Amino acid sequence: MALQKGDFTLIDYVAKVKETGEVFDTTNEEIAKKERLYKEGEIYEPKLVVIGEGWVLKALDESLEKMETGKATLVELAPDKAFGERDPAKIKRVPLKHLTAKGINPALGMRVEHDGKMATVRAIGAGRVLLDFNLPLAGKTLVYEVTVKKKLETEKEKIAALIHRRIPAIEEVKFKFTVKQKSVSMEMPEEAFYLEGIQVAKRGIAMDIQKFFPKITAVKFTETFKVSEPKKETKT
Amino acid sequence: MALQKGDFTLIDYVAKVKETGEVFDTTNEEIAKKERLYKEGEIYEPKLVVIGEGWVLKALDESLEKMETGKATLVELAPDKAFGERDPAKIKRVPLKHLTAKGINPALGMRVEHDGKMATVRAIGAGRVLLDFNLPLAGKTLVYEVTVKKKLETEKEKIAALIHRRIPAIEEVKFKFTVKQKSVSMEMPEEAFYLEGIQVAKRGIAMDIQKFFPKITAVKFTETFKVSEPKKETKT
Repeated sequence: MALQKGDFTLIDYVAKVKETGEVFDTTNEEIAKKERLYKEGEIYEPKLVVIGEGWVLKALDESLEKMETGKATLVELAPDKAFGERDPAKIKRVPLKHLTAKGINPALGMRVEHDGKMATVRAIGAGRVLLDFNLPLAGKTLVYEVTVKKKLETEKEKIAALIHRRIPAIEEVKFKFTVKQKSVSMEMPEEAFYLEGIQVAKRGIAMDIQKFFPKITAVKFTETFKVSEPKKETKT
Repeated sequence: MALQKGDFTLIDYVAKVKETGEVFDTTNEEIAKKERLYKEGEIYEPKLVVIGEGWVLKALDESLEKMETGKATLVELAPDKAFGERDPAKIKRVPLKHLTAKGINPALGMRVEHDGKMATVRAIGAGRVLLDFNLPLAGKTLVYEVTVKKKLETEKEKIAALIHRRIPAIEEVKFKFTVKQKSVSMEMPEEAFYLEGIQVAKRGIAMDIQKFFPKITAVKFTETFKVSEPKKETKT
């Protein structure tokens, strides 16, 4: 059965630059490691995409509608469907000392900040550097190898995935929740109590749940601070 | 009826240095303003003191046991019962440049940091300053004018006060809670959701409640993110 707008899907992908075959993004840990993309602390796992929400590039999002679960699909995105064409006007020559004054010793290909914007160093000359303010993937045709691993069917699965999206560091199964008429009540796992940004994550979860399940008007998060029960005396 | 150890009291006080009459601490906003002690954001109100817990200077704590509710009492604390005697060995001459190198331009009476400790500048000479590492109130006899405003009687009042002690920025009445057999369940007010340090405050509250009410083994905090009900269509 084909997928459609509004479907909750978990997708795996490997994203490459077509010309060079360079992998620049993936949900797969092995590939991330092999391609030296791996970042400590990042979580590699199928990504929740609600089709049509713009959580991935628009053209990629649209192509999900034609996919089948479990089948790898290649999606090619021309620059105008990806990060845009390269704009030659965004390549500028600036005095080298503007960088060295900030302690930057530029090298070819290095990403540097200049006037509050990020640029790539394209050339270094006598006292000047050529900075390219285009996005690194501008002008590139991208190829995504996408597999929809799963389509989520039940309300419970969907809500669990929405929670996980905002608090990816903790396993989904650790969030116990119940859905009643108009409210979701969730027991937060202890390891989430002190996560940085946890309060903002809760607000995000509440907003997400209400967006996709408009009947839900309240999302309750409960944190239980348990103290060890006093030891029972051994009967003699 | 005299107070005793373990009583939950709300106290007001004005604390002065005996010799000079200088007020250095108070729970009273008017007096804080008059004495130029007032700090923006600080909360001036009767302070919760559980007698015997060491939440105030020990000698002051002990004197609370002899007080009566509603009656102002003067408590005089000799230095050894307050911030200790002055230790002449803690007065040191240091090169002026140790301070100026850190951008400090010392003046008499100024509090400065030196070698990770705080000191008061006592004298400034040719290339040297005299730093006093004694606590500012060391060697002083203190006089506290204390009034026990109220003794808290019920479990509910006491728990409310323990909550307020950890989250003073929000009015006590906004925390709704119920006490059942072994647990306290609290509905957090929305304005507390994003307070800095709120998660640590919750843990503190849970620990405090369990300490004073050992039968309580779980403290539950619930945060409800409500969304506005969809508007009902007007019937035509």
